[in-house]
Parts: sequence; C-alpha cells; structure tokens
Amino acid sequence: MSSQTAVPDDNTAALDFLHLAVAPRTEGKPREKGLTMVMDQGWPIEFVDGMLDAFGSYLDVVKLWDPLLLSSVRHVRRRVEAYLKHDVLVQPGGLFLEVAEQQDKTGEVLKRLRDFGFDCVEVSSTTSTRGTLDEHSELVRAAVDLGYRVVGEVGRKFADGDETRLAEHVIDIDVTVGEFTRLLEAGAWKVYWEGHLLRMVMGDDPDGIRAQAGTGTQQVLEVARQVGQDNIMFEVSGLRPKQNRQWLQFWLVRTFGPDVNIANARIEEMANLEAIRRGNHPIFGFGNAGNYPWMRTGSSVERWWRA
Amino acid sequence: MSSQTAVPDDNTAALDFLHLAVAPRTEGKPREKGLTMVMDQGWPIEFVDGMLDAFGSYLDVVKLWDPLLLSSVRHVRRRVEAYLKHDVLVQPGGLFLEVAEQQDKTGEVLKRLRDFGFDCVEVSSTTSTRGTLDEHSELVRAAVDLGYRVVGEVGRKFADGDETRLAEHVIDIDVTVGEFTRLLEAGAWKVYWEGHLLRMVMGDDPDGIRAQAGTGTQQVLEVARQVGQDNIMFEVSGLRPKQNRQWLQFWLVRTFGPDVNIANARIEEMANLEAIRRGNHPIFGFGNAGNYPWMRTGSSVERWWRA
Amino acid sequence: MSSQTAVPDDNTAALDFLHLAVAPRTEGKPREKGLTMVMDQGWPIEFVDGMLDAFGSYLDVVKLWDPLLLSSVRHVRRRVEAYLKHDVLVQPGGLFLEVAEQQDKTGEVLKRLRDFGFDCVEVSSTTSTRGTLDEHSELVRAAVDLGYRVVGEVGRKFADGDETRLAEHVIDIDVTVGEFTRLLEAGAWKVYWEGHLLRMVMGDDPDGIRAQAGTGTQQVLEVARQVGQDNIMFEVSGLRPKQNRQWLQFWLVRTFGPDVNIANARIEEMANLEAIRRGNHPIFGFGNAGNYPWMRTGSSVERWWRA
Repeated sequence: MSSQTAVPDDNTAALDFLHLAVAPRTEGKPREKGLTMVMDQGWPIEFVDGMLDAFGSYLDVVKLWDPLLLSSVRHVRRRVEAYLKHDVLVQPGGLFLEVAEQQDKTGEVLKRLRDFGFDCVEVSSTTSTRGTLDEHSELVRAAVDLGYRVVGEVGRKFADGDETRLAEHVIDIDVTVGEFTRLLEAGAWKVYWEGHLLRMVMGDDPDGIRAQAGTGTQQVLEVARQVGQDNIMFEVSGLRPKQNRQWLQFWLVRTFGPDVNIANARIEEMANLEAIRRGNHPIFGFGNAGNYPWMRTGSSVERWWRA
Repeated sequence: MSSQTAVPDDNTAALDFLHLAVAPRTEGKPREKGLTMVMDQGWPIEFVDGMLDAFGSYLDVVKLWDPLLLSSVRHVRRRVEAYLKHDVLVQPGGLFLEVAEQQDKTGEVLKRLRDFGFDCVEVSSTTSTRGTLDEHSELVRAAVDLGYRVVGEVGRKFADGDETRLAEHVIDIDVTVGEFTRLLEAGAWKVYWEGHLLRMVMGDDPDGIRAQAGTGTQQVLEVARQVGQDNIMFEVSGLRPKQNRQWLQFWLVRTFGPDVNIANARIEEMANLEAIRRGNHPIFGFGNAGNYPWMRTGSSVERWWRA
Repeated sequence: MSSQTAVPDDNTAALDFLHLAVAPRTEGKPREKGLTMVMDQGWPIEFVDGMLDAFGSYLDVVKLWDPLLLSSVRHVRRRVEAYLKHDVLVQPGGLFLEVAEQQDKTGEVLKRLRDFGFDCVEVSSTTSTRGTLDEHSELVRAAVDLGYRVVGEVGRKFADGDETRLAEHVIDIDVTVGEFTRLLEAGAWKVYWEGHLLRMVMGDDPDGIRAQAGTGTQQVLEVARQVGQDNIMFEVSGLRPKQNRQWLQFWLVRTFGPDVNIANARIEEMANLEAIRRGNHPIFGFGNAGNYPWMRTGSSVERWWRA
C-alpha cells in the first residue's frame, strides 16, 4: 500500500488536490453568466443542505416550486434559510404572484414574501390573461423597490394565447425581443425564456433537435444575438424525463458554450449539469458530439463544445 | 427593502400567511375521502421524516413496499414509527401476506406485523391462485379482529387469470362490483383498485386516455357509481415514469374531482399530487384542460376540474 | 388488538422475524458472486448513510460517479468513509484516471486517490484512444501494487472505435474474450462489461430483448461461458429510465440466475434490485416470466428464474 499522504479535510477542490485539469469555469459566485438555476420540487431540507454542502458553489438561483407553499410558514422559512446560507438567490414560484394579481394582492404578497426571506422574484404570466407590458414593467419596478432581484419571463407554457409564437414551433422574433427588452429596461436582472416553448422550438430529443437545428435553434440564436445571451436564462424543464432534460442542456452548451445560463435544473443533478458544462459527460444521440467533447479534444480546441 | 413584518415560525399554512386563497380541501385528517396513499419505496428514514414534516398533512396511508422487509427488524420498526408519529396509517406490502398464505402462516404473520406497529393491512391476491371470495372475506374479518384497518384489493396486475376483466382493456363490471361489495361487507375500510389494470382500461398517456374516455373511463365511472366512489382507492403506479403517473392522477381528478382517493403516489411527489388536486399544476397533453384549471377559471366555476 | 409480542430492536432480518421464507442468497458479504455495484450519482451523504443502514448488506462495490470529484476534498473524504464503514469497496469514476493518462499523471493520481480512501479502481478506456493492451495490463499491476482491488472494463459506450464489436449490435466474441482474459491475467479482480454496449447487443426494452434473445443474448452467454460468469460485472446504466434498467436487470437474472453480478445500479433501488434477484418483483413486458417467478412457482422449481 502507498505511504499515506496528508489529505486535507477542507474545501480544496478535489480535482485540484489530484492535480487534474478540467475545463474551467469563467466566473465563480456571484456570477453574471454561466448561471445555474434549480427548481426545488420539495426534497427534505436536510437533503437540500447535503446537496448544497457538496455542490452549492455551482448553484446561483433557486426557485421554490409553487406547491411548496402548500406547507407551513415554519417549513418555508427554514427552506429559504438553507439556500441563503449558501449564497443562493431564493425566489418563490411564479404562480402565486399570478394568483395574487387575480386577487388584487400583489403589493401585499410581494412584501410578505420578502419578509419570508425571498430575495428574488419572477414576473411572469403563465396562465392569466397577459397584462399589458406596461403593467409588467410596473411590477418589475415595484419589486426592485422592495429589494428584490427581479427575473422576468418571456413565453408561455401553452402555445394557445402565447403572442411570442407564430405557431407552436415558431417564434415571433420581433415580439420576443421586444418583451425581453422591455423587461430588462424596467429593471429585470435576467429574463427566463419559457422551457416548454423552447423544447417545442428547438426540439426535445436528438432527432427533433437535429431536425430543428436549422430553424428553431437559429431563431433562438437570433433572439440571443439581439437581446444579449447573458441576459437570458434558458429553461429546461425539470419535470421532463431526465434524458430529455440532458439532451437539451447539452444542446444549449453546444450552441452557446459553457457560460450559458440554464434554469429549472433539478437539485440532485447539479453535478451532472456541471459535468455537461465542462464537456465531461456522455450524451447519447448526437453521434460523437456527445462523446465527452472536452476530454476527447484533449482540451486543445478553444471552442471544444463545438467539436 | 421593506420594513420587516414579523413572520411566525409555526405551522400556519404559508398560503394563509400570504392571504392567498386556493382551492380548499373538503376534509382534514383523519379523512374519509380525498385520501392520498403513498408507496414507500425505500427512501432513508430521515428523508421520510423531512417529507412528512413538510407535507404530512396531505398523507393518509402509507404502504411499506415489499422489498423493504428485506431490511432488519430495527430498520422496519423505525420506519413504521416515523409514519405513526404523523398520524399516517401504515400498511405492509401485500406480497408477503400472500407468501404467508402459501406457507400457511397468515395468522402468525398478521400478529407479528401488528406487533411491528403496522395498523393497516391489505387483503389482495396479486400472484397466488386467487382464493375463494369466502376465504378473503374471512381474512378481512381476522385482520379487523386484530385491530387492523383493512384495505381490500380488486383486480390483478397481469390480465392472465384476472376474472375482473373480460379482456386486457375491458372490465367485467358485475364481477368487479361483486368483489368490491364482498370485501366491504366483510369489513374492509376501503378497497384498492389495481393500478396496472386501471391504466390498461383508462389509458396510460394523453392519447390513450382520450381514446378510451368513452369506453374504459365510462366503465370505471359505472363501477364507482355502484360501489360508491369514496370506497375506492384508485391506484396509479409509482413505478411508472413520472409523466404517466401525473397524467393518470390528473385524469382521476378531472373525472372524479379533488376528493378522489389516489393510491401508490410517491412520497417525494405529495406536494405535486396535492397541486394537481387543487387545479394549480400544469399537465400537458390534454389541451387547455390541463392548463391550471382552478387558476384559469378564477375559482368562479363550481366544478372547475371539469373546465 | 393482539397481545404485544416483544419485537427485537436489532439487525435480525425482518423476514426471519416474520418466519417467512424467501429465495435465499448464496453468499453474504464479502461476496465473490451475486455482486451488486452502485454508481453513486451524488445523493447527500446523510442519504447514503440512511440507505446503507437499511440495505448495506446487499451492496458490494460503489463507484463515485466522476462529477462528484467536482466537489471538495472534505466532501469526497466523508463520502468515501460512509461506504467503507459499511464494508463496501469504493472506487472513483473511471473518467479521471483517463484524464490522468492524457495528462501523464496516472501514478500520482492513483496514489492520491488511495490516500482519499478509495480501495478499488477501474481500468477502462471510455474515450481516450485505446492504449495497447500491454499498457492496460501494466496499469492493472501498478494499481494492485498500490493496494487496490482492480476492476477492468471491456467495451466502450460509443460503437465508433470499439474494437470489441463487429457492428453496433454485434460482439466480436474473440476480441472480447481476449480482453477479459488479459485483464484478469494481469490481476483484475472482476471486469465490467460496458452497459451501453450490452443494451445495444441484448436489447433495451421487452420487444428488443426478446427479438435479440437468439442473437445478442446468445453472444453474451458464449462470452460468459468462456470467461467465467462470475468474473464479469454486467453494467446496466443507472442513467437510463428506471423501466429500461429494470427490464435489463430482470433479463440478466433470468439469463444467468440470481448470482449474476450487476453493476451501475442506483443506490435508491438496491431493495428493488434485490427483489428482482429473489424473484419477488413484478416486471412487465415479458408475459408471465416477469410475474413474480419465485413466488409463482411456490419455490418448488430449482431454477425458478427460468420459469
């Protein structure tokens, strides 16, 4: 057996201790790009703590999924605190802010959510008749005044009534860019791009993604060019099967590079997503492109994610 | 930043604190309808504790999945106690009672399971040559005498040898109603309706469910009309992919309303199921029907789940 | 209610306490066959502890999935210790040893991984240009000298460049047997057979598996005959949907019996896999063969897994 080397018991990155180089991250926390957002779907708080203890440095924003508000005040408070302790922005699900709008309680609910400790809020319109853009800009400003980091949202889960699409699979680029711009000008820090829209437009599995690479992905690229890629948080639904989620996360990294902002990841898959960002994870269905691109290129290619 | 409001650190429902109205539940625990049963597939006990701490008020019955009995006495005892502490009825998987029947140890095993703390037991016949109905009625009575809440089961996982079906997708309504009635008359509190049977009969995905809406779902409705909806616990397999599980849970709520009894949910999805019951969860594949029906109707429609 | 029997609070097997017989295991730990290997994909350490507390006696080897090395030294050490405490061999993901090869640091990295507490190591070549067999044999010997239990690997995730296959679905039996033999002769304890290769060759769902039963499965059987079944650890990817994983685990048990070595299981499914090994778990898609074969045959058939 080898003579025992002193192994530190600290937060040194394990790979540094091993003297192994991997594709690096451009920024550490707090980041302005390469953001990972997780939708907390309700694992126990101790479970969350354990995940953050291991991989908290890769998590920037968490959304406490709407059904979590079906629990108690005590529970929600403890959950929010678990994330704040790890310097993660904590946002409530967007749904109840829409309920609040319906029930004319936006101001009060925003204040009370702030009292809970939430420091990030989403301005979206998933289900309600979409308010005028003016009203949304106003809501963004009100939230900023309350001390929130505000994330807007563009696009809707269901194509029916989504004015940012010309058809289920086709973006209206001008309307889309207009909404992004308006939200950002009103003070939004970043803007989510709705995930169910994206999977319709970009495809949801390798065959679809490749088939739509020349159409949907090109539209998405054009929007990103006009809006600024770093302003967009691309949602990839955490409710889809794991395979589909990975295919799209991989495709976003392949298209936009490791510094793409990805939203709606699952907390138990932070390391998985991080490995996809670093090009060290196998993704099937895209031929050799998914075959550990960073490792395969021996780190000798500058834009290895295109290899 | 807003001035700090005192946030209570107690079991006040978070939504009440926010002064937000959502679709209410008809009954709190102990419930006689709107029951949720979870099949515990073996998460760590601390994980179970954490889930119950958050959402225990939505859980009525748990079944400790058969493979869990492959662990130690100490472990099973602690697991049972974790649920009892949260006023959840605890039942062992039905399989080993069938093994006990084969090995002529039913009486002894029932007694020892009771000593473990189990206070609910299932009388089913998943695999064994189905005993006569008389024998099952007798077993129900014996279990009731031992202090158990007894849940019967109608239907079998595999169509081969299932006398409650005329074909894989077709129920024999008379035989089915007869078995429900017999079990209830013998003292069963509720009766599970086998989930793999139901997904064959009602469909397993949106296309199938819609295609069988006029046939399978109508048969299920007719059985429920004759037996009494509240007497039936509809199983939706926790071993199927999450999507399929959600589609069927949604369809049961849409068909029978939020007070339908749903069995075999997964413990990590209690909040998810609760949100489906409340009409505040998006379900894809059913057009606008799955588009947050309670929110979308603005709570102004009495039977919003049909909207 | 029954009079209370004294229930021990110890590690007695729950089924023994119930006096229920189930299909037994041939060997307890440490095993030489019937091995279960889990790929730890990053659950919190407390979660791992809880799973091992319940089902640790069914786990023989764990691989800490490569992305886990993206966490801190402190975290990796604690994770390794959690498994060692339960007498589980702990191996790092194979990827970083390949990175080390690329970066000419194999010797150093092997030593440092040993210092972390890892006591098992995999010699594979997933992505790198495959080194000569001589180099791999040398690496096996070096690892053995450092005190490692060494597990080799045959086959590659991507067919492109995999010399053990004649086509995506066809094994080159001679080359395959040659690689197994070489690795074993060099000192490997066992050898993984790559899971993505196996699902191509044996099929990935019931239709495929049955269609390839006379071709792919026969090839796998022939390799096992020449190499010795107990020397092979059959991988079933823990990244595939749960259904596909279960279908293949079932098929391996059906083909090779309960003492087949199965790798890449998920830690939350140890009890599930154990139940499949014991013939007490329903598997759909294979007709009656998946219908609880041990129970169904009443334990009266010697090779019940073929029933």
